[in-house]
Amino acid sequence: MQIITRTIQFETKGFNHIVDITPDVQSQLSEAQLNEGNILISAIGSTTGITTLEFEPGLVKSDVHEMFEQFAPYGKGYRHNATWGDDNGAAHLRSMLTGTSLTIPFVDGRLILGTWQQIVFIDFDTRPRQRKVVVQLTGK
Amino acid sequence: MQIITRTIQFETKGFNHIVDITPDVQSQLSEAQLNEGNILISAIGSTTGITTLEFEPGLVKSDVHEMFEQFAPYGKGYRHNATWGDDNGAAHLRSMLTGTSLTIPFVDGRLILGTWQQIVFIDFDTRPRQRKVVVQLTGK
Amino acid sequence: MQIITRTIQFETKGFNHIVDITPDVQSQLSEAQLNEGNILISAIGSTTGITTLEFEPGLVKSDVHEMFEQFAPYGKGYRHNATWGDDNGAAHLRSMLTGTSLTIPFVDGRLILGTWQQIVFIDFDTRPRQRKVVVQLTGK
Repeated sequence: MQIITRTIQFETKGFNHIVDITPDVQSQLSEAQLNEGNILISAIGSTTGITTLEFEPGLVKSDVHEMFEQFAPYGKGYRHNATWGDDNGAAHLRSMLTGTSLTIPFVDGRLILGTWQQIVFIDFDTRPRQRKVVVQLTGK
Repeated sequence: MQIITRTIQFETKGFNHIVDITPDVQSQLSEAQLNEGNILISAIGSTTGITTLEFEPGLVKSDVHEMFEQFAPYGKGYRHNATWGDDNGAAHLRSMLTGTSLTIPFVDGRLILGTWQQIVFIDFDTRPRQRKVVVQLTGK
Repeated sequence: MQIITRTIQFETKGFNHIVDITPDVQSQLSEAQLNEGNILISAIGSTTGITTLEFEPGLVKSDVHEMFEQFAPYGKGYRHNATWGDDNGAAHLRSMLTGTSLTIPFVDGRLILGTWQQIVFIDFDTRPRQRKVVVQLTGK
């Protein structure tokens, strides 16, 4: 059994910006040359999300945003914003509900995901950011 | 340390169909004869959910459905549906928020869960399907 | 590779009571003297939540509560409540959506989290309780 920890980095625009990180995760797996095990994908930051989603424009550009606007709208006057002179209360709420960490199994060196199921990073924050995601492989 | 990967399969009806998979997970654990470690339960497909829930009819048949109908109703005209001639935009949104993967620890060969806490699979899709869930045990 | 399982215990007040358990998790990691790996944090009970959140009063005392009240209000007449003479249907729904389990990587003996990202336990139940959370370390 081995454990290998890597970091991937990329730039995001914020406001529900959804990034397909499946190719980066798969490439870490290929490089590690492990056969069977799992990959922990964990985002750094309390205004981020890690989940799976069919990465297609309808969901990515419209539907996910509209869903979150119903119960954690960006424009609401959150107590978080009033307390800290901040404007990203919505981002914190979306993050806590989506989760920032996910584990996916692999067998024969390949991620086990559905055909239309991608691993996505979501930047819920209200400004462009440089983001880091930890990819940790455990297996043999 | 060992790592063992199995798949369980079952049929679902869709539309928020909730299946208690705790007995299947426990039986994989019993068969593996491991003492201490954890089990990754990961569903294949972007219209699925894996979480824990008290598996009782009130929640399973009514309350969970009513909650999701408030912010991701099946009948809404999603951009996903318009783009792909599809009808399951709601299923994708419910899946991304619920999550499709979960890890539960075990000690003395037994899952550590609350008395009323079951591991459930939810099929959010809009038609009956044959489903696969990966059960991966890591431990000693 | 080692696997070490511990339990932390604390008292909660219920009704969305949010507890910062990051120091407890970090102290289990320090004691284990592992360098690289991950920690599974798994709550026992179907009215609990484990997630990450900026632990500051605005979010913790107001905003998180207000978000959940929109789609899983405590005062609603849930089928769960009617069936079991219970009053915590909202707690079960919030728990299934938030999730009760989380895995965080560590490197050089330190948890990899953002500066404002804490590991929190949420008690969604409707009464004070004694709670247990499993902290399981896997690594070397």
